[in-house]
Amino acid sequence: MVRIVGVGLTPFGTTPERTGRDMFAEASDAAFADAGVPRTDAEALYYGNFMGALAEHQGHQGPLMAEAAGIQAPATRFETACASSGAAVRHAVQTLRNGEADLLLVGGAERMTNLGTDGATEALAIAADDLWEVRAGVTFPGAYALMANAYFDTYGGSREDLAHVAVKNHENALENEHAQYQQRIDVDTVLEAPTVSAPLGLYDSCPISDGASAIVLASDEYVAENDVDAPVSITGTGQGGDNLALHDREFLARSPAAEDAATEAYDDAGIGPDDVELAEVHDCFTIAEVLALESLGFYEPGEAIGAARRGETTATGDRPINLSGGLKAKGHPVGATGTAQIAELTQLLRGDHVNSDAVPDATVGLAHNAGGTVASAFVHVVEVAE
Amino acid sequence: MVRIVGVGLTPFGTTPERTGRDMFAEASDAAFADAGVPRTDAEALYYGNFMGALAEHQGHQGPLMAEAAGIQAPATRFETACASSGAAVRHAVQTLRNGEADLLLVGGAERMTNLGTDGATEALAIAADDLWEVRAGVTFPGAYALMANAYFDTYGGSREDLAHVAVKNHENALENEHAQYQQRIDVDTVLEAPTVSAPLGLYDSCPISDGASAIVLASDEYVAENDVDAPVSITGTGQGGDNLALHDREFLARSPAAEDAATEAYDDAGIGPDDVELAEVHDCFTIAEVLALESLGFYEPGEAIGAARRGETTATGDRPINLSGGLKAKGHPVGATGTAQIAELTQLLRGDHVNSDAVPDATVGLAHNAGGTVASAFVHVVEVAE
Repeated sequence: MVRIVGVGLTPFGTTPERTGRDMFAEASDAAFADAGVPRTDAEALYYGNFMGALAEHQGHQGPLMAEAAGIQAPATRFETACASSGAAVRHAVQTLRNGEADLLLVGGAERMTNLGTDGATEALAIAADDLWEVRAGVTFPGAYALMANAYFDTYGGSREDLAHVAVKNHENALENEHAQYQQRIDVDTVLEAPTVSAPLGLYDSCPISDGASAIVLASDEYVAENDVDAPVSITGTGQGGDNLALHDREFLARSPAAEDAATEAYDDAGIGPDDVELAEVHDCFTIAEVLALESLGFYEPGEAIGAARRGETTATGDRPINLSGGLKAKGHPVGATGTAQIAELTQLLRGDHVNSDAVPDATVGLAHNAGGTVASAFVHVVEVAE
Repeated sequence: MVRIVGVGLTPFGTTPERTGRDMFAEASDAAFADAGVPRTDAEALYYGNFMGALAEHQGHQGPLMAEAAGIQAPATRFETACASSGAAVRHAVQTLRNGEADLLLVGGAERMTNLGTDGATEALAIAADDLWEVRAGVTFPGAYALMANAYFDTYGGSREDLAHVAVKNHENALENEHAQYQQRIDVDTVLEAPTVSAPLGLYDSCPISDGASAIVLASDEYVAENDVDAPVSITGTGQGGDNLALHDREFLARSPAAEDAATEAYDDAGIGPDDVELAEVHDCFTIAEVLALESLGFYEPGEAIGAARRGETTATGDRPINLSGGLKAKGHPVGATGTAQIAELTQLLRGDHVNSDAVPDATVGLAHNAGGTVASAFVHVVEVAE
């Protein structure tokens, strides 16, 4: 098994003055402090970043971030848009299972708010097809609005259904000190907010965020030899892909890439969707959470739209979704999100998360990280497994 | 073993009108044609690109390039500056060895000349430390000039020694139809050219290039089951890392990251430097070839400077280096270079390269791919091994 020996996060939010290296140093310091292992044991850094070339005029961030983390080890950057650190996790899992390393630092960082809203929207748009989508005026709020309209047209549902997703995720973030928005909203807040791209309004959208995350992963051998306390493991990994442009998809209201990633991860972990007790899913827009729940097999197509409204996915529901606050309320520094999801799940399962009381006996969690309009998808199963 | 079942290249050169997807489609078409296997067998794309965010306003290129290649499979982009597709190769080798896939498409593409010389120079500079190098005016010709001066100061050597590297690599490219420069030069051409950053002149520098490369890698099982002819394999992989900024290095005239990568790759393949009969090394500048030959253990520190002048590394020498023409004459579309080196070595060892006659009995080749001022390094051993 691949053991999670430490996790670390910066607060997510609006810190345009902080460099990526500054934020990643903080996250990796926190992860090694949590792990209680010397950072010099790390054999490589697997790192996710998306828009550093535009936001900081900085590519080749692997070596830079290894230095920021204080490890003397080779580093590789992975980029699959908003799923960049999800890709890093997947390859780290493979490397550890393969016996090619015993301790890896995995993480991501993104500096975004220094670009301003227009600049960040333009930078995010490089995750779409520049020739056929961006030049036609499609940025991500528009793309997800197309997906939401396709969903409504096919299965039904309303803006109020989506509003309940936002309300739930804000509620979950209230006490999360790493969350960008620790404020309660209600359905009217969402419905009365300005429209960004119909049917999605301002509160249907995740914010633009700065932040970093890091996790320390180890082999069973390392954990045994060094007597490390690491009750949580990554037991399944899956990846899926799809055409980049929406117009090359057969149907906009399902995400085959996420379905494929989930199928692979479940098979890998030897579980099924019914075994998952809590999940962090990629709710870059409220409709994205709905699509994710169906991709992951928690609901049949067309059934997840009412999940938050019915209370099934709230903190007191049968299967809490995005107890961290999700991208919606915790924030979405894109390269950091994949490993942040794993970090939050680890704390939730260990019992040292502010929202652990919502899932006191849970042993099986899942992370769903998507790039673009789910042209890239990574799913990881995270379990308490001694 | 990891078998190389097919290789494909576009011509490298100045084609500013071609998109990255157009070039990658050509390279992957060629690779699958060479392989003689259906592209639908590919289980993933491992892809390298460096500056797409700046040159084409296009990140998230993995899914785009999978579609361009005609494969329906997940895709991951790797970015380690000019060693981006070297990183893709390393992770593909791990995945195939691990049994997690049996057939992978690996490659890279870069569109650069559409930016113009100033724009491409600025884009390349994001491989250096933006805060501490680029803002101080250091671009890559200047950085490698610092390394050349450190070398000359420590070990001696002259601009004429370096000129012989350029002359050799141009000579090797004369008949290579994929090479950007198929023209003979002499030592005077190099010495009389304009200085870019002393001691490096125009002919000490590789060009700015457009191009793509692709290789199809398979497991032994796939090759056996499908009766594929694949005489060449990747038998060793190594990666090294260093601080990103030159001022954080102890000594500028050696490349510890490449030394570490070479040591790991030799151990992995069970060979030593004396077993290597030909190599493609990362000669982004003439001094870079000299440093590479020492990093790889072909020469003691301070000894490689005269290798080309003495004829030891020419096509008729004991160990030909950069028979393709190298980055210097074949061209350097950065994200494509790592897999292009493997493609050229494969053809040289199979006997179907225009320069195969220079190494008629060779069975062991090596590829050395570097990022930035060798803050990232990947070494792969490529062998004829049935």
